[in-house]
This record gives sequence, C-alpha cells and structure tokens, in this order.
Amino acid sequence: MGTGYLDQIKQEAFEVNMGIVRERLVVLTWGNASAIDRSSGIFAIKPSGVSYSLLKWQDMVLVDLDGKVIDSKFKPSSDTLTHLEIYKGFNEIGGIVHTHSQWATIWAQASKSIPVLGTTHADHFNGEIPCLPYLNKAKVERAYEQETGLQIVKFFKDQKLNPMQMPSCLLSGHASFTWGSTSQKAFENAIALESCANMAYHSLKLNTKIEFPHHLIQKHYKRKHGANSYYGQ
Amino acid sequence: MGTGYLDQIKQEAFEVNMGIVRERLVVLTWGNASAIDRSSGIFAIKPSGVSYSLLKWQDMVLVDLDGKVIDSKFKPSSDTLTHLEIYKGFNEIGGIVHTHSQWATIWAQASKSIPVLGTTHADHFNGEIPCLPYLNKAKVERAYEQETGLQIVKFFKDQKLNPMQMPSCLLSGHASFTWGSTSQKAFENAIALESCANMAYHSLKLNTKIEFPHHLIQKHYKRKHGANSYYGQ
Amino acid sequence: MGTGYLDQIKQEAFEVNMGIVRERLVVLTWGNASAIDRSSGIFAIKPSGVSYSLLKWQDMVLVDLDGKVIDSKFKPSSDTLTHLEIYKGFNEIGGIVHTHSQWATIWAQASKSIPVLGTTHADHFNGEIPCLPYLNKAKVERAYEQETGLQIVKFFKDQKLNPMQMPSCLLSGHASFTWGSTSQKAFENAIALESCANMAYHSLKLNTKIEFPHHLIQKHYKRKHGANSYYGQ
Amino acid sequence: MGTGYLDQIKQEAFEVNMGIVRERLVVLTWGNASAIDRSSGIFAIKPSGVSYSLLKWQDMVLVDLDGKVIDSKFKPSSDTLTHLEIYKGFNEIGGIVHTHSQWATIWAQASKSIPVLGTTHADHFNGEIPCLPYLNKAKVERAYEQETGLQIVKFFKDQKLNPMQMPSCLLSGHASFTWGSTSQKAFENAIALESCANMAYHSLKLNTKIEFPHHLIQKHYKRKHGANSYYGQ
Repeated sequence: MGTGYLDQIKQEAFEVNMGIVRERLVVLTWGNASAIDRSSGIFAIKPSGVSYSLLKWQDMVLVDLDGKVIDSKFKPSSDTLTHLEIYKGFNEIGGIVHTHSQWATIWAQASKSIPVLGTTHADHFNGEIPCLPYLNKAKVERAYEQETGLQIVKFFKDQKLNPMQMPSCLLSGHASFTWGSTSQKAFENAIALESCANMAYHSLKLNTKIEFPHHLIQKHYKRKHGANSYYGQ
Repeated sequence: MGTGYLDQIKQEAFEVNMGIVRERLVVLTWGNASAIDRSSGIFAIKPSGVSYSLLKWQDMVLVDLDGKVIDSKFKPSSDTLTHLEIYKGFNEIGGIVHTHSQWATIWAQASKSIPVLGTTHADHFNGEIPCLPYLNKAKVERAYEQETGLQIVKFFKDQKLNPMQMPSCLLSGHASFTWGSTSQKAFENAIALESCANMAYHSLKLNTKIEFPHHLIQKHYKRKHGANSYYGQ
Repeated sequence: MGTGYLDQIKQEAFEVNMGIVRERLVVLTWGNASAIDRSSGIFAIKPSGVSYSLLKWQDMVLVDLDGKVIDSKFKPSSDTLTHLEIYKGFNEIGGIVHTHSQWATIWAQASKSIPVLGTTHADHFNGEIPCLPYLNKAKVERAYEQETGLQIVKFFKDQKLNPMQMPSCLLSGHASFTWGSTSQKAFENAIALESCANMAYHSLKLNTKIEFPHHLIQKHYKRKHGANSYYGQ
Repeated sequence: MGTGYLDQIKQEAFEVNMGIVRERLVVLTWGNASAIDRSSGIFAIKPSGVSYSLLKWQDMVLVDLDGKVIDSKFKPSSDTLTHLEIYKGFNEIGGIVHTHSQWATIWAQASKSIPVLGTTHADHFNGEIPCLPYLNKAKVERAYEQETGLQIVKFFKDQKLNPMQMPSCLLSGHASFTWGSTSQKAFENAIALESCANMAYHSLKLNTKIEFPHHLIQKHYKRKHGANSYYGQ
C-alpha cells in the first residue's frame, strides 16, 4: 500500500510551514509545523535543511509514532521527537506548530507564563499560557528533543490542564509550541499566541495590577468553543 | 421593494472590513465594520465566519434596528447587537469599526483611558479617549454583546461626551470601538486611534508628567472640525 | 512667462510627498513636503485635501515667499505658512519635510530633545535634535501655522544653531520638521530622524547614563559633511 | 590574468548587500557587506555612493589585503579598512556584514553586551555577544576605520574568543559587525543578531534576573555546529 492517502496531511503541513514564515512567526529556519493522520498514526513534518524557497508539499516527511521515517529522501526536522511525544500524549490534536516567534519567545526567555488580560487571549486560551521550567541537564543530555515533548505532556497531566482548552505552552529559555484539532487551528493559535504575548507585555507595563474578571474569561472562551458556541466576527 | 438601494452601504461596509485587515488593525478575524443607511434604519455588517480571502461585498449582511436580518444567506457578525445599540444611541453616526488592534487593546487591557498628549490626537479626538469599566457578571450573562453597546451609549450620556467629538472608546479587558459620520470616517478614526495609542504609551515612558496645553487641543480640533475648519495637509 | 520652468520642483516635491508615505513616515494625511526654487523664490507644496492615491506631480501647488498661490486649482497644505517662514529664515535649504512619524512624535509629545547616542545620529545631526517649547496661546490664536515657522527660525538663531548642521527639530506636543539642501536630503533626514528617535528611546531604557564621546560626534559628522568629507558606505 | 575568477565573490557580496536591505537591517545606506576569496586574498565589497536601486553585481569593488583596489571604476565603501583588518585577523571567515540594524545598534549605543537568554541566541552565538569600548580619540584621529578593525581583532585575541564561535560584536556608540565562514553565513548571523538583540531587550524588561542554564547553551550550540551537529528544523 502506498502513502498517497497521506498526501492531504503532507499538503496541510506544507501550508502551515509556509504560513508561519509568511506571517513572520519564523525568522531564518526557527520553526516547523506538522499534521497527523490519526487513523494511521502517521504525521507529516518539515524536512530538515531544505530552504523555504525550494520547499514543496511533496517534501514533507512522513513519520510514524514509533519515530520511523516512511518513504522519504529527506530527514525530518530535528524537532521531530518533540512533535511525536506531543502527538502521543495529546490524543485529540491534529497539528502542531513550533516557532521562535518574537513575543512568545520573549516571555519564554523571561521564564514567565502569560497571564489572561483580555478577551483576545480568552477567546483562544482558557487561562494563563504556562511557561514550563528549564529542562535539566540529565534530560538534555539523554535525549533533548524527546524529553522536551515528554516534559510538555507530563506538565499538562500534572497540572490537570486540558490541551484542547490550553493549546499552547512556552518552554523556559527556548520558545513556544502550539497545537489544535487541526494543523490550521494550531497555526491560528500560534498567531493568537504571538499577538497576546505582545499585548500582555505592554499592558503590564501600563498597569502592573490588572485584574481581568473571571466571568469574562469564561464568557469569551465559551462563546467561541464547545457545545453552545456562537462566535463569528 | 428590493434591497438594491442598500448596495451602497454593503459596498462601504465591505471596503472598511477589508481596509482594517489591510492596515493590520485586525489579526485573524478580530474585528468587524458596519455602515448604516439612516433613511431606512438598516445597516450592513460583516457576515459571521466567512474568510476575508473569500469575502465579497454582496456577502455583507443587512440588519434593521430591531435586529432583524434582511435577505441574507449568512448570519451577521456575533458583535452585531453592539453595533445596533451604538447606532440607536448615537444618531449622527454613519459607520462603526470594532477592532482588537494592538495598541488600542494594550490600553484597554490595562483599563486606562488614553490621554491627549499631542496634536495628532487632538486632530481626531477632542479629549482623552475614555476606557469604560469591565462589564459586570450579570450583564455579561444576560446579553453580552447588547450590554456592551448599551454601556457605551450610557457612558457617553452620563459623561456628557459628544460622540461626534469623541468618536472612539475602549472597553476594559476587551478592545476598541470607533465611529464617524461615515464608515470611511470611522475607519480613519480607527487608524488614528491605533497610532495615538502607540505614541501615548511611549511618550509617557519618556516623560510621566506631560502637560499638553488645552489651547492646542482646542486649536487642532477646531481647525479640522466644525464650521470654521480649514485643515488639509 | 509660464511656470513650466518650475516643473522640476513640482516633481521633486511630489516624489518626496509620495516617499514619506511609502516609508511609513506618514499615517493618514499627517505630513507634507515641499521643494523651493531659490532663483524665483517659489516653492511647490502638497495640495490640501487630495488623496495620495490620486495625487499627481502636476497637482503640487506653487507658492511664493509672500504666500501668494500661483496658477493652481488647489489650495496648498494648511501647513504652508510654516514652510514659508522656514524658507525665509534658512536661506540655504532647498526642501522641507513635515511628518508626524511615530518615534519623532513620541519625543515631541514628551517635550524632550533627542540626545546624540551614536554615530548613526552623528552622521546626520551635529548634536542633539532640539525640541522646542509649546507654542503659547497668543501665538496659536494669532496665526498658528506662521508662528510655528517663526518659532523655529527664532530658536535656531537664539541658540546659534546652524540649520545646515542641524537639519531637524521637534515641536513640543506636535511633531517634527526636517530640511536639507535639497528636498531629497530633507527626505533622507526625515528617515534618519525616525530611526535615531527609535534607537535613542530604547538605548536610554537599557542605560540611562550613556556618554557618547564628543570626538566620535565630530568624526562622524565631518567624514560625511563639509570640505573633507569622504563617507560613502 | 583577469579578475573573472573573482566574479563569484562579487556576486556573493552583491547578494548579501541586497539581502541586508531587503531584510530591513539597513536604513538608507547604513550598512555594507563583503565576501573574500582566500586563495587570492582578494575581497569584493559594496562601492561607495552607488544607490541600491542601481547597484549591479559587477559594481562590487575588488580590494586586496594591502588595501589596493583592483580594476574598478568605483571607490570601495568607506568602511573597507575595517573589513580588511577583520579578514586579516580572522583567517577562517569568508564574509563580513556591517549594519546599523535597529536592535543591535540600540545595544551598541547603550554600550552593553547582549547576554545569552535563550536557545535562539545559543544556536548562533556561543556566549554573550560582546560590546567593545568606545574607540579613543587618538585612534579615531589616526585612522578611524582601520583602528575599528584592529580593535575588533585585538579584543577577540585578548578575550580568547573564537571568532567562528562568536561571529559578531557590537561597537560602543556605533553599530554591529557579523561574519561567518561564507558571506551567506555572515548574513544569517546578522539576521540572528537583530532578532536576539530585540528579544534580549524585552526579556530583561520582563525579568531582570534571568539565569539561562549553561548546559542549554552548550547543547544548542553543539547540535548546530561542529563535528556532531545534527540540527535542521
């Protein structure tokens, strides 16, 4: 059996990889995106070391959840094992975006979570966007990229965070991951993250004691998500 | 009688909805614009859930001041009831723009009004741009979007603010609304708001004790507006 | 005798008026540029109230140094009298640019001069870029735009500033004027001003006690200007 | 023997000179790039005073390591002697980029080195990016551009910094130089510098006590550089 039935996730992953560059979430090659086909347990991810200007959707590398590359002349992104662990840990997600986008990375470098200060944030993220601690030396030396994914999944489980309601996290000293039910949703969440990170930074410089009311978080998150959602600007 | 005579406001509303995206006042779908025909009491507003890249002027949704949708296959923006209450409360305005533009939203999230620090501001806004308080829980639960509009109209009435001289406000924890005698003027005011919000933020970081003289506010506002205006750069 | 021999300054003024929009020094219509023909004492300036998208070089308005409009269907910019007084006061300049560009205006609103913190600044401006005081009420009421020009010329004379070595100033609560031996030089100085204003703001936030050595100011200014200049990156 | 075999470095230098403008690292003419052919000891650099819009690859000026211009109708950039001294001091580099890019220059004007706060930085620069002291008056008067190059080489030698692991420095009150094994790598490092300078500024405003762990610096630098590198997003 060929892999032709996986062309769709290759195309989806390609579109998002190009999108994060176009939206200036990626400088140089600092980012990558993937999309998964849950029925086969195979995801498509950016190849390693291919220039964006030459990239074709056919170049996306297929990888299964054991980390085996399927039918590709390219190596997958060096961050592949992080994507893999996130897919294994978060069963409902269909796509992942990793970027070093400026404002999200500014918070990650400061090792601080992004608080909810407004409805823009609450429309996408049901609470503060957590910043995970620095990965320790033993984990970095053992298997850096895999441990990064394992850390994310463990953190969400320990903190009882629902990855469908909090589709993003920051990694101290590193950058951001976002995800969603599809790779397109993951992309939109990456755009939302960058904008919210920017606005939160500056709002706190204007007013250090912002108290955004909980009922507005709930209202905005629920009008856009779940059974009774009705949002559409 | 058909709605053909309303094509003009559909075209106007379309132009402004595209304009706020082009001018980067809107990220993702965080914004919408409308234009009203005062003779019929019908306004045209962005449809809900249609991608900008596919949007046509014909898709604009017509809504009357009772909130009834006229002859459309689309639902109107989820913020329609806010627009409606503003049109009902402010009789002289012809268009409304709502955006989560970065700098205006930074002030809204900080729950702070934007002071007049220069002639750029005074050319468009005759005084500080007010930031309204957070909407309370009861109002959010009763009818969030309608209450948002009612709050704006009540605030301007209570504060004796003339909406034609102060064509904008911020909503704490949310974003901005601007308006004008036409939807084009509302659009220009939204651009002016974003620029003034940006500059006010940084000017205050350079000098916390700015005292912009009242006679310059008056001069600039009046050379551009009203019976004796003569401005035109 | 026709005004055909003045086509060149109309074209020059047009190019710079379009340039300041393209370089994003101008938001909406917040800016204008002019070029002067010194032999006839006539300058060309942006017409009032014509949209940039429709503007043609032929639309530039010719004005003489008595303020008389020559052969034009348009009114000149409402800031014309400011340009006129600057041309009368600074004999060697060939062009003037007025913009509310973001960073220059941020300093103007803060009512602060921009200090020399680096060679980028020193390449264009031989010292701190002065911010003039707020114009008083009597002058604003008498003849606002003319008094603005008179204030600039008087300030440079009182402070013994050479307008060819300091081709810019800020006006408290307002914005910036730049000039140069040609309108193209005035345009380049407006671009340099905006960049230096931006960088000075942020450098001072990193280090409040910057002491840029005087010998570097002199070296950079002189390698680019005057008899022994040799600069050219 | 002609210089045709040097066409490649002229083309490379041209591409990078255009690239730094396109990437907005250069405002006006504030920057230049060069590429060297090590076998002949000749480098190609931007000509002085030619507008970018007219620049052709054939216009790049060839200069040998004695500073002699080879077969050119143009003068080389006024910063040529700085490039020359860097090429003489750092034997392994193939290209140099000098820009007054905004964020790098902000740090240079503040006379502060850029600390390592994250993996983005550590991927390109193995430690803090040093800011060298102001050049003293005697050196400025003797031979400003040459002394600038000599200062950089001496600083790296004194501090035992490996220019291949730290391919950039700032000059107090001036701007930045970056380099690399090729001019393309120098270009990428200039882009990385600007982004890291931006993010470091803001991260430190969020958290003044960032302690980025040393093991992450090492991991990131080594997965991208040297014998065991495997990075490729």
